[in-house]
Order: sequence, then structure tokens, then C-alpha cells
Amino acid sequence: MTQTNRQILLVSRPTGAASVDNFRLVETPLAPLEPGQVRVRNHYLSLDPYMRGRMSDAKSYATPQPLGEVMIGGTVGEVVESLNPKFKAGDKVVGMFGWQEFGTSDGTGLLVVDTTHVPLSAYLGPVGMPGVTAWYGLNRIIAPKAGETVVVSAASGAVGSVVGQLAKRAGCRAVGIAGGEEKCRYVVETLGFDACVDYKAGNLYHDLKVATPNGIDGCFENVGGDVLDATLARMNAFGRIALCGMISGYEGNPQPLKYPALILTQRLLVQGFIVSEHMDVWPQALAELGALVAQRKLAYRETVADGLENAPAAFLGMLKGQNFGKQLVKLI
Amino acid sequence: MTQTNRQILLVSRPTGAASVDNFRLVETPLAPLEPGQVRVRNHYLSLDPYMRGRMSDAKSYATPQPLGEVMIGGTVGEVVESLNPKFKAGDKVVGMFGWQEFGTSDGTGLLVVDTTHVPLSAYLGPVGMPGVTAWYGLNRIIAPKAGETVVVSAASGAVGSVVGQLAKRAGCRAVGIAGGEEKCRYVVETLGFDACVDYKAGNLYHDLKVATPNGIDGCFENVGGDVLDATLARMNAFGRIALCGMISGYEGNPQPLKYPALILTQRLLVQGFIVSEHMDVWPQALAELGALVAQRKLAYRETVADGLENAPAAFLGMLKGQNFGKQLVKLI
Repeated sequence: MTQTNRQILLVSRPTGAASVDNFRLVETPLAPLEPGQVRVRNHYLSLDPYMRGRMSDAKSYATPQPLGEVMIGGTVGEVVESLNPKFKAGDKVVGMFGWQEFGTSDGTGLLVVDTTHVPLSAYLGPVGMPGVTAWYGLNRIIAPKAGETVVVSAASGAVGSVVGQLAKRAGCRAVGIAGGEEKCRYVVETLGFDACVDYKAGNLYHDLKVATPNGIDGCFENVGGDVLDATLARMNAFGRIALCGMISGYEGNPQPLKYPALILTQRLLVQGFIVSEHMDVWPQALAELGALVAQRKLAYRETVADGLENAPAAFLGMLKGQNFGKQLVKLI
Repeated sequence: MTQTNRQILLVSRPTGAASVDNFRLVETPLAPLEPGQVRVRNHYLSLDPYMRGRMSDAKSYATPQPLGEVMIGGTVGEVVESLNPKFKAGDKVVGMFGWQEFGTSDGTGLLVVDTTHVPLSAYLGPVGMPGVTAWYGLNRIIAPKAGETVVVSAASGAVGSVVGQLAKRAGCRAVGIAGGEEKCRYVVETLGFDACVDYKAGNLYHDLKVATPNGIDGCFENVGGDVLDATLARMNAFGRIALCGMISGYEGNPQPLKYPALILTQRLLVQGFIVSEHMDVWPQALAELGALVAQRKLAYRETVADGLENAPAAFLGMLKGQNFGKQLVKLI
């Protein structure tokens, strides 16, 4: 009984904007397991902005995704076959199997998770890499004090939604920046932020000023470009900027920072970071985030594309902000 | 015997570049001392880039210099009369009397210094605010490890010259950026940097690349603009940028940072700072710097303008990089 695996490969690098032509869907026969191996049927594939960086071969923090190989990505799924004593069929697992329906490995980096109180897909969102990213940037870089104002861009997204909710729990004024009225309403009404500024409304700086009457002490930046320029101009002395992403510049021309002198005049700290380089915080962060999700004290939202073949289009849409919350691809 | 004090007032704020017309020289009779007061004949006036910021009333870290008052500035001099038991005639003192020949105060902030082994003027340079600025940014922000590469702009200046020499003492490769062959030669031959790049030669990025074969781990930034863009592009992962000054943008239009995404991709720390907000480090820093100067282990250079009336022109020249080392005005 030879099964077939469907996979999406990166076959070319974008020049300018990424396109579906950079990807190719292939079918590959699944080889029988070897001793020590485990096979996982992936249920959900995570789509994340960092993947855009991997598609290019420009200097970056990670080696580029090799051409002709399965596109990188986080996955959750179920063990369907195991020749590894650490796993048994039926185990729910989180891994990095990438854009494919089945993953096969020796178990390295594969984590069995408990889905009694936390939905499997949440391990790709608030109880996964995006959640830990939010936790690290907020707690270890911004380190907010009660009463301070924290602003987060892409506030309805997988990372931003957690940042603002954690900031509120820390006693801060949480202000989001998001694209469109619907997302902004969600950020305030469902996520509980104090305010959310719609950057598409055309008055970004003015609206941000109104939403941050006491200035900004902590900025969790996911977007860059005009959004970061506006936030920077509202920063208070000794403010902290956790630089997590600059999605507005991932496609096309690099975006300058208009007034870097503010970093000096306001004595700001700006720290770029990648959560995978801070594995020491993951256990604590995941424990806290898992408890909050299990107790329904941390809201999150998912946009789910259906079927592996739709992953490229969903990914490109996410880069344009067409997702609403965590972008997933449902594989089964 | 009524003596006359000569003073320079700020009488208008620059629109665009500062000019001598922003200042006015006045003569004022010296009132007799009141009980508790001390009078100082200033010997040297310090001219520093931060003063340009005080001339404007734009949002900044300090309140603007009020119009019609004596221009702010550090001074060293000699007590000529004292009705304060803490000071006696002949004491050499460091203070903040500003652009005037005589200073009168209740002694607050006035520090008696020992000129046995350290020249009086050095207390405005390597053993004063510029020296502590270098010490703080290097030790507390860049925190270099032996073998790392540290780059400092305005390398022949009062701050930059100390940064590079301290970096060498810490076992680092010290690379300067300065304007012109003469300054670059001085930075290497006299100050002992490993290399110095002449930003006026027209090949800044290329020359910096050659001078930093292992990339840059620590950047002490005094200039901003193109200089910071070039340095940023050479930063290694986990590099630290101490943002001390951005003199290239003090006159005229703010200068953008072209590739802020590098802060993210290289996971850099960027920290703006003002040394006067870190008074806790001054005693340790001054003790170390004073010992090095006394032992002639720390070289420095001064450009001395003669006479209070020449202070405005000397200040404007400094903003254009016409000074070579610490810019002083000799008052007696």
C-alpha cells in the first residue's frame, strides 16, 4: 500500500513581489518507514511572514530556503505510524514539516502536545511560535510597567493580538494598529485593547496621537515603513521598540526610517530579535500562554485556507494583509 | 572697582543652518558677590555638538536654551573671589558657566579639580563630559569583547578619539571614520586605531568594508546619515549601536536611515543615550580616564579659538567638521 505525499516546493526566487509561480505542487510516493522514524499526517500548516525572507537569498538571519525543496513551515498533526518508541499512532504533535501533507522524521524537534483544553491549531498560534514571539518581545525587550502605553502593529494578527492582550494583563494601555475598520473593531471589542488605529483610514499619525494621549512607552513593531515612522514620532523618553517584523518592506523596495534622530533625542532602545534564538524562554512562555488559552483568557482568531494547493495564494494574501488573525492551511 | 563681564547671548533661533547672527556679544557689569557665592574667571569654554540642539525649540531631550540668556556650555577656570567656604581663590574648577568670561554661582555643580598631572582643559575633553560619553557608550552599551570590531565616527573628535583608544585597550579592532586624510592619519598614527576611513574620499562603504574584514560588532555613532547607513550595512549579527550623536543632520533636513530592516535581520541593539542621565558612572569613568591622561596613555588633541568673541564662528565651524579634536575657546 504505497501512499502518496503532496508537497509544495519553492522552485524560483521572487524578483520584486512573490508570486504563485515561485511554488510548485508535486506528488511523491511515501517510502516505508525506517527504524526510529515516525510519520505524521499534518492537519494544519502555519503561514508566517518570516517565510518571505526565506524565499530570497539576500543576507538575512537565516539561510535561504533551498530551491527544489519542500517549503519550510510549522505544522501540527497526528502520528499515523511510528517505529520510534517516543511516539505512538494517535499522538498529536507540533513540528516543522513544511508545506506537505505527510512528514517523516527521526523525531528530532517533534513535540507531543495535549489537546484536551487547547485546540491543536492553537499550537501554531498563541501557544506556538507567534505567541512566544509576542511574549518575548513584550516581556524581555519592552518590559512594560503598569500604566505605560504599548503600541503594536498588525494588531489583529497572530503575534500582535497576543502582545496587546498580555500588555493589558500587565496593566498597560494597549493600542493596536491594523488595516480596516473590521480588524480595528475586533482588536478593541474582542481582544480588549484600549484603542486601535486604522492605518488605511489615511490619518495614521493624527489618529495614533489621539489614541496615545500620554505618548508611547513600548512599541512592538511588525510592519515598519510609515507605521513605524508614526509610532517613533510618538515615543516617550526611554521608550523601547521590539523590532519583530517589517512586513511592509518584504515585497519590493526597502523602506527607510524617516527620523532616526528620534532614537537619540528620546534615548530609545531598539532591539531586533528572532524568537528561535531565545529557546530558553519557550517553556515558561508556552506554559503561561497555554494556561491562558485553556482558561479562555486569551482570544485569538484564525483564517483557514482549505487544502495544500491553496497555500501559495493564502501566503501571498497574508503578505498583503488579507488574512484576519493567524493564517493557517487546513490539510485534512 | 567694577569689573565688566563679557557674555554671548543666544538672541534668535536658526531657521535651517545656524549663523553668527543667532548670537550677540554683550558687556555686563559684575555685581559684588553675595554671601555664599563664588566667582570664577573662566579659562576655557567647551564647544560641543549638543549645543546645536539647544538652539532650536524642537522636541528634544533638553529644554531649549532661552533667548536673551548666556549660551549654555561647560567651562574650566579659576576661582578669583569666594564668599563660599568650599572654594578659595586659586582653586581650579569645572562648571557650566556658559559662554562668558566670568561665572558667579553658589557653588552648585562646581567641581574643584587637580591640575598637577591633568591639564585644566582636559577636564572639558577626555577627563570631562566627552570622555565619560565615550566611556559610557562603549562600556555600557557596546560592551565589547576582545577580538570584536568597534567602529566610531567623528573618530578624531573629543568623544570618538576616546572611544577608539578604550576599544583598543579592551582588545578590539578599532576602526575610525573621519573627514580628510590628515585626520585619518592622526587617528591611526597618534591615537593607535587599526584603521580609519576617510568619508570625504567618496568610497565610504567600500573603504569601510575593506577596513572591517570581519564585519562590525559595535558602532559608536556620532554622525548619522550616510555614515550610519554604511556602518549599519556592515554590522554583524547581535551587534550593538550606541547612538550618541547625529551631527550630519543637525543643520537642515533630517536624514533618514536607509535600511532599518537590517536592525531586524541582524538582531541589532540600537540605544540612544545622553551621558548626563547616567551620573552614576561618572566617578568611575573619570577616575579611569584621569589616570590614563595623567599617565599619558590616552592621547587627545584640541583646536583652540582665541577669545570669547570668536566662539560663535568656532562653534559653526565645528558643526561643519572644521575643528580637529576637541574644540575649545581660550578666554584668558
